[in-house]
Amino acid sequence: MGCIQSFRQLCDYPKNTNVHISFPAVCFVWQTAMIILFGIFVRYNEESDSHWSEYKKAKNLSDIDNDFYFRYPSFQDVHVMIFIGFGFLMTFLKRYSFGAVGFNFLIAAFGIQWALLMQGWFHSMDAEGKIRIGVENMINADFCVASCLIAYGAVLGKVSAVQLLVLTLFGVTLFAVDEYIIISLIHAKDAGGSMSIHTFGAYYGLCISWMLYRPNLNQSSRLQGSVYHSDVFAMIGTLFLWMFWPSFNSAIANHGDGQHRAVINTYLSLASTVLTCMAISSLFNKHGKLDMVHIQNSTLAGGVAVGTAAEFMLTPYGALIVGFCCGIISTLGYIYLTPFMEKHLKIQDTCGIHNLHAMPGLIGGIVGAITAASASKSVYGEEGLINTFDFVGKYKDVVPTQQGGLQAAGLSVALCFGVGGGVLVGFILRLPIWGDPADDNCFDDEPYWELPEDEEVVTPVLQYNNHMQNKDVAESHFTMEQT
Amino acid sequence: MGCIQSFRQLCDYPKNTNVHISFPAVCFVWQTAMIILFGIFVRYNEESDSHWSEYKKAKNLSDIDNDFYFRYPSFQDVHVMIFIGFGFLMTFLKRYSFGAVGFNFLIAAFGIQWALLMQGWFHSMDAEGKIRIGVENMINADFCVASCLIAYGAVLGKVSAVQLLVLTLFGVTLFAVDEYIIISLIHAKDAGGSMSIHTFGAYYGLCISWMLYRPNLNQSSRLQGSVYHSDVFAMIGTLFLWMFWPSFNSAIANHGDGQHRAVINTYLSLASTVLTCMAISSLFNKHGKLDMVHIQNSTLAGGVAVGTAAEFMLTPYGALIVGFCCGIISTLGYIYLTPFMEKHLKIQDTCGIHNLHAMPGLIGGIVGAITAASASKSVYGEEGLINTFDFVGKYKDVVPTQQGGLQAAGLSVALCFGVGGGVLVGFILRLPIWGDPADDNCFDDEPYWELPEDEEVVTPVLQYNNHMQNKDVAESHFTMEQT
Amino acid sequence: MGCIQSFRQLCDYPKNTNVHISFPAVCFVWQTAMIILFGIFVRYNEESDSHWSEYKKAKNLSDIDNDFYFRYPSFQDVHVMIFIGFGFLMTFLKRYSFGAVGFNFLIAAFGIQWALLMQGWFHSMDAEGKIRIGVENMINADFCVASCLIAYGAVLGKVSAVQLLVLTLFGVTLFAVDEYIIISLIHAKDAGGSMSIHTFGAYYGLCISWMLYRPNLNQSSRLQGSVYHSDVFAMIGTLFLWMFWPSFNSAIANHGDGQHRAVINTYLSLASTVLTCMAISSLFNKHGKLDMVHIQNSTLAGGVAVGTAAEFMLTPYGALIVGFCCGIISTLGYIYLTPFMEKHLKIQDTCGIHNLHAMPGLIGGIVGAITAASASKSVYGEEGLINTFDFVGKYKDVVPTQQGGLQAAGLSVALCFGVGGGVLVGFILRLPIWGDPADDNCFDDEPYWELPEDEEVVTPVLQYNNHMQNKDVAESHFTMEQT
Repeated sequence: MGCIQSFRQLCDYPKNTNVHISFPAVCFVWQTAMIILFGIFVRYNEESDSHWSEYKKAKNLSDIDNDFYFRYPSFQDVHVMIFIGFGFLMTFLKRYSFGAVGFNFLIAAFGIQWALLMQGWFHSMDAEGKIRIGVENMINADFCVASCLIAYGAVLGKVSAVQLLVLTLFGVTLFAVDEYIIISLIHAKDAGGSMSIHTFGAYYGLCISWMLYRPNLNQSSRLQGSVYHSDVFAMIGTLFLWMFWPSFNSAIANHGDGQHRAVINTYLSLASTVLTCMAISSLFNKHGKLDMVHIQNSTLAGGVAVGTAAEFMLTPYGALIVGFCCGIISTLGYIYLTPFMEKHLKIQDTCGIHNLHAMPGLIGGIVGAITAASASKSVYGEEGLINTFDFVGKYKDVVPTQQGGLQAAGLSVALCFGVGGGVLVGFILRLPIWGDPADDNCFDDEPYWELPEDEEVVTPVLQYNNHMQNKDVAESHFTMEQT
Repeated sequence: MGCIQSFRQLCDYPKNTNVHISFPAVCFVWQTAMIILFGIFVRYNEESDSHWSEYKKAKNLSDIDNDFYFRYPSFQDVHVMIFIGFGFLMTFLKRYSFGAVGFNFLIAAFGIQWALLMQGWFHSMDAEGKIRIGVENMINADFCVASCLIAYGAVLGKVSAVQLLVLTLFGVTLFAVDEYIIISLIHAKDAGGSMSIHTFGAYYGLCISWMLYRPNLNQSSRLQGSVYHSDVFAMIGTLFLWMFWPSFNSAIANHGDGQHRAVINTYLSLASTVLTCMAISSLFNKHGKLDMVHIQNSTLAGGVAVGTAAEFMLTPYGALIVGFCCGIISTLGYIYLTPFMEKHLKIQDTCGIHNLHAMPGLIGGIVGAITAASASKSVYGEEGLINTFDFVGKYKDVVPTQQGGLQAAGLSVALCFGVGGGVLVGFILRLPIWGDPADDNCFDDEPYWELPEDEEVVTPVLQYNNHMQNKDVAESHFTMEQT
Repeated sequence: MGCIQSFRQLCDYPKNTNVHISFPAVCFVWQTAMIILFGIFVRYNEESDSHWSEYKKAKNLSDIDNDFYFRYPSFQDVHVMIFIGFGFLMTFLKRYSFGAVGFNFLIAAFGIQWALLMQGWFHSMDAEGKIRIGVENMINADFCVASCLIAYGAVLGKVSAVQLLVLTLFGVTLFAVDEYIIISLIHAKDAGGSMSIHTFGAYYGLCISWMLYRPNLNQSSRLQGSVYHSDVFAMIGTLFLWMFWPSFNSAIANHGDGQHRAVINTYLSLASTVLTCMAISSLFNKHGKLDMVHIQNSTLAGGVAVGTAAEFMLTPYGALIVGFCCGIISTLGYIYLTPFMEKHLKIQDTCGIHNLHAMPGLIGGIVGAITAASASKSVYGEEGLINTFDFVGKYKDVVPTQQGGLQAAGLSVALCFGVGGGVLVGFILRLPIWGDPADDNCFDDEPYWELPEDEEVVTPVLQYNNHMQNKDVAESHFTMEQT
């Protein structure tokens, strides 16, 4: 802590938000690197290569058996969640919509390329050392990027595009290692990524935000709120996330009943969350009114929390119970925890990802462990149990109770990687070279985006109405000059 | 009528929009009830249960034969229509976007759970008294909710969230009974729900609105219009409804040609509607200008009107003709009927659902009856006729002309359920306990939503410009510079 | 040129934007014509006809083999690109959002009907002279309309709805002939339409815009910019185009590996484009800021440029390289070429389609030719080569190098049709009968749309701020009253 403090002092200096050289340089160099690495490593897999026609004959398959037709519709739904869902969910700030959608777009586009490589090295290498990609790799790349977009939610409005690219570079790398340990080494199941995506991503972002703590952030408090239409834009993000979450949790589940069941569980959990979220939002408001922040975020907690258990026999009412609890916990988090964390833990969490991803992610990991531990042949059926938990090869002797333990182990790993990685990357991002905005310039598109002229109007007028009581000519002159 | 009048007087009292206790209470109690009922009744069906692997072996199927792969893409399209389509279509009001999207979200999330139970009891009970759910049940639940969201359109801005939940509870119940009679008892076909969804939902909502008639609604006329951007938001809803309507009408149609044909018919009918809708909108405007209200709503009428006949051999040009007529009728409805109904029938129809759902729904039922009655082996083919109209089991002797009669009977049932149910529920919703807004407070998010601070800015400025009589130079400078 | 000049003078007259009679008349007459022509020519094909049940037995197929299940999810993605993607991409102008979304909706709805006929006559006629339609025809109709919507981008805000319908009528006709020559006669492959859709559509629109050159367009310069929220709306269009472009390029590719590979190539190319686009946008801005115009448009160039080669063995890194270059070229086009073209070539290109569709389309055609010419059995496999390039029947002796030549020939044809057709249609659209807006009335919804009352505020205030120098009380009264 001491050293962190001193390090913080070290980094407090007048900010320079100019990324005129650094940003284009990073983009070009990294994109060129991607091309070279793809050239060396990445090839089509047997289902996307033109040798498919011979492959399918050899295996006696027909075109419809191509994994493409099992997964592509889900992939596109996930793709919408990544770019529209996360992007618009973050547009709620009155003056940071360009940054929310635009930077989300940027880091997702870079992240999926890097993820294809990182995940490929761990999971899809063939004998010749080539990464063979198909639709499932694309889904996993989107998943991987999701964890970085979650982290972005914590630092939204307080970092530069260059910092976000660094956050993504390390985030994807950590994710791939993290996922490899959880899925391949520990043999935990995590179809919807409650552990590897949400828990990891959320703590990764929260720790970065803690490292980047800004004591004087209130200087830009005028920009921390929403406006009527920015809240409506954010609902576009919320609803696309909410609607397509069943696709997210089922996208890489087993063909057949696995995907089918994952969809049903997620659909039900999310429906239940909406009611309890709105109930708490109204109950804890002094006039019984609903708060858009809760509706935009906490209604999604149920989807996070069934991520791991989605393909298990959670039962429909089990899914409803999970959603019920998460709607309550997540909304209460926004009401009590977020202010507490900012005040006492020095964690400034712009989008409240602790309530939307961290807590529900942990719950999801625990629910997954319990559901796995309580699995039985009578419920799953002989074969069903083996298929669902992949009790084959060297894992053929694993029993459900053990699997429960493995799930718990996986959750701890995700948590450690999130916290450790976040602190590490946070350190790096404090270096005075990234062009992050000054405290009074946060949550503002102005430093990084060419803004439409007539927007300039807004600010002075706001200040005008807020700060000035008695009509004062000097003041109004000031306004005029601004305009 | 007399008793209704007196009942109305009875209910005219100073409004209290505080739902601080009632709203959370209803949400918690009902959601808890859902969990209990799901625990007792709802289980996975053979395609979403982990016994699928054994089931498919027994039936000699492969994973791709799982109904999930036939219907999930359509389900997601329908899901988008329910939450984005209906939600954003209703955001056109300048100050009721939160209520439009938010309450739509709430009642849909509750409704789909209740619908899974109600429809399950009627259609999906197995020998052990369990409801077995799969993707088709989820589609039907979304359909069921659609009828309540249609009804919401009639009372938009004039009711509280609690009233909407009551409207949905009864609406879903009535829908399930209605649907059971139409589909199972009468054996009418209604793939796209022209009768069971649109006709029922529309008259259900219109009768509720009639029961809740507000003689002094003009007190909130200042809020009844749209603003430029709220109209653009509404177009998001319109377009997603328009684009995905083919999925709506084909989602539960027969595998293979049934779904394929339903898509083509809906696609064509909707295309044709757009042109006649715009033509009428321009023709009846004194400067030949287009009216956004018509574009947002009447362009969808063609999808409603081919709902029943979508999977029949309507022929492509038949679909175009249906769309052609509906575009005209629906648009004329907005121009002449809606004002007439408000003035003379005391029916205040905020979104004009009578023009978008009621009339096209009736047309759809009639088109379905005619198309069915004129079906023949020569057109459908021996097997095709049997598959399309399900002339099997105890219905194997039904002939097309009889089927036409059954379709007509189904339409009448839907109509009766809508009117009867609407009057009944309207009575209940007039009770002075639901926290509905006062007449001068309608179409306003303020009573039920925490609004962003700076919205306060807008209002005073507007009021300021409206109410101020004596011009003051300093003041006017102030105004100018703001602009 | 001389005659064009004189013709231009001929057409310079006081504008009358009243389309009170002409617009409804055109809609009704053309829609009626569609119904008659569909009645004579269009029928369901064997997969959407109720005889499918017999057909599949005869061919020993199962329902899942119906092309519907191979293509419908992609079709719906394409459908979203056409109506939401193109529609909202054009909403960036501060006062032309209704026209952007509304007219896009109108011409697409008309265009798909006319395209089904035109393309049907060339490609889907059966022995009895009937056009047999299924899901693939619907995709092709959407593709065909895309070329007209691209052309709309060049004349956005400067033409009337009637002119757009004429543009679409001719555009679809030219497209169908163009496509028939490229695909059927020349035997070029063009799955994603780099040549037939983008190159043709872009030059078609640019030449029309050149013919409709307005020397005094700066009179409406006050409306040529965007406002904060209109830019966010435009991002909805951008992102849906970007996300679903893989579906666009794969929608009509070969079943199995063809569709699978087309998706991967497009996904990668687009990701790479985003980084180079943003890099250039920042690098060439004097403060290193990002420009929304570039993000909204140039990020899509990579999708255009892999259109032709998408289903070839372009290799993943090949796709990244294509995207890399297009992001740079397209963004530089917005910075340098668009102003140059307006100033020196008299081409006013509202949306910059030259940078988003024309140049990337040409690149796409060239990339396609090179990729085809360098194809080999070793890379594609014996069968793969035949399937990918359709070397069967009378083309069974074509070798890759020849195919490269054919691709180049196809590109030239698309270019010629675009330029020739554009000039021709531009001539027609200059006739003084179409109700196009005056120069000071461009980019404004006011002439063609009923605008929400309180929008009236903006116009006078804008004019006020622009035209008036000395503060004048009367004027300011006027402002207030309006507000």
